Amino acid sequence: MHRTRVKVVEDALDANNTIAAANRADFDRAGVRVVNFMSAPGAGKTALLERVVADLPGVRVGVLEGDVQGSMDADRLAGLHVPVTQLNTDPSFGGECHLDANMVRSAVPSLALDEIDLLVIENVGNLVCPAEFKVGEDARVMVCAITEGEDKPLKYPLMFRTCELVLVNKIDLLEHLEFDLDRLLYNIDQVHPNVERLLVSARSGVGIEAWREWLLRIAAREEVGV
Amino acid sequence: MHRTRVKVVEDALDANNTIAAANRADFDRAGVRVVNFMSAPGAGKTALLERVVADLPGVRVGVLEGDVQGSMDADRLAGLHVPVTQLNTDPSFGGECHLDANMVRSAVPSLALDEIDLLVIENVGNLVCPAEFKVGEDARVMVCAITEGEDKPLKYPLMFRTCELVLVNKIDLLEHLEFDLDRLLYNIDQVHPNVERLLVSARSGVGIEAWREWLLRIAAREEVGV
Repeated sequence: MHRTRVKVVEDALDANNTIAAANRADFDRAGVRVVNFMSAPGAGKTALLERVVADLPGVRVGVLEGDVQGSMDADRLAGLHVPVTQLNTDPSFGGECHLDANMVRSAVPSLALDEIDLLVIENVGNLVCPAEFKVGEDARVMVCAITEGEDKPLKYPLMFRTCELVLVNKIDLLEHLEFDLDRLLYNIDQVHPNVERLLVSARSGVGIEAWREWLLRIAAREEVGV
Repeated sequence: MHRTRVKVVEDALDANNTIAAANRADFDRAGVRVVNFMSAPGAGKTALLERVVADLPGVRVGVLEGDVQGSMDADRLAGLHVPVTQLNTDPSFGGECHLDANMVRSAVPSLALDEIDLLVIENVGNLVCPAEFKVGEDARVMVCAITEGEDKPLKYPLMFRTCELVLVNKIDLLEHLEFDLDRLLYNIDQVHPNVERLLVSARSGVGIEAWREWLLRIAAREEVGV
């Protein structure tokens, strides 16, 4: 029973990888760089996008919004006059907890790839399954809000291990929390030594310039990651 | 393709319900009441348990800890001299993002049901899939931290709709956030009208007495829910 289950999971991930490679080929052909943007619910992904997507000189940004239900984040971003496509994962009972390559593939025709240079895919808020499914991205960014505690890298290691950038968000709240920032950074290094990380606050603006520059590096095809 | 997928999901949930009913029968036979305790990562489930599990007069509590990896929360609770069983979901690639009835069933033999009155199952931190899988519980409690924003009920409706109690946690941070508490409570009522909710802070102790009393009502087999 257990071996069968593992085999089913492996087959599903194999199929996903095949489709992710097809997505990647389409993105490459169109000259579009792609970021898979992930976090727990409420860590601040949309707020961090609102801060930068309309202000990347020379880079036309598009956003693919993944949500179980609704289009609240897409509506927020559309107000910035950025092309946004909504992808909902709820045809089944409670909805899928992640985007997979096939869902992203289904959205590709509506993405107008020839009109953008950088596509940000805002995944479903979840620290587990989104990390398991490639969607055709060039780089992965995850947001870890300090309000979530110092232990998250150790409890959700795959997410931290497979990303090229960790945005440590809500840093403006540091003085109001019993939070050991050094402990969080130490835990990040335990699962992904020296991964690039930025201390940011979507609210106060701290670190936002560095986050903007990181996206410009991605769009310029510079190497990122360790 | 899509219909096939929905069918597979329905079959899996059918099988899960059958096993959940078997778990429930075992719990009933042993006279144990069971709470399925859920939230997003870092919302404060373990901290809220630490506040109450060792201090429920006349009620012997046991905890089943669900995590992708590690035993950090179990270690914290074991320090309170409460029996804790750890269940890790990571035999496959990135780990399962939820507990299902069969995982809980595998842990039942180690739970010493004859020595407890109330079992709290701390689920994996995730607002999607844990809500889809019954595990044999009498009641569901979810934690929603105000640091996660007002929109979570609308984005993860099944979780809010299927619980008997919402703990609105980290209420001590209210003055430091741009957070509209009335908007959150309104959104909760949109998806689950009049569901019981408590404003709490594991840090300051606000609302903890009411949380303790709610667990005592569960243990005393009082009716809860709307």
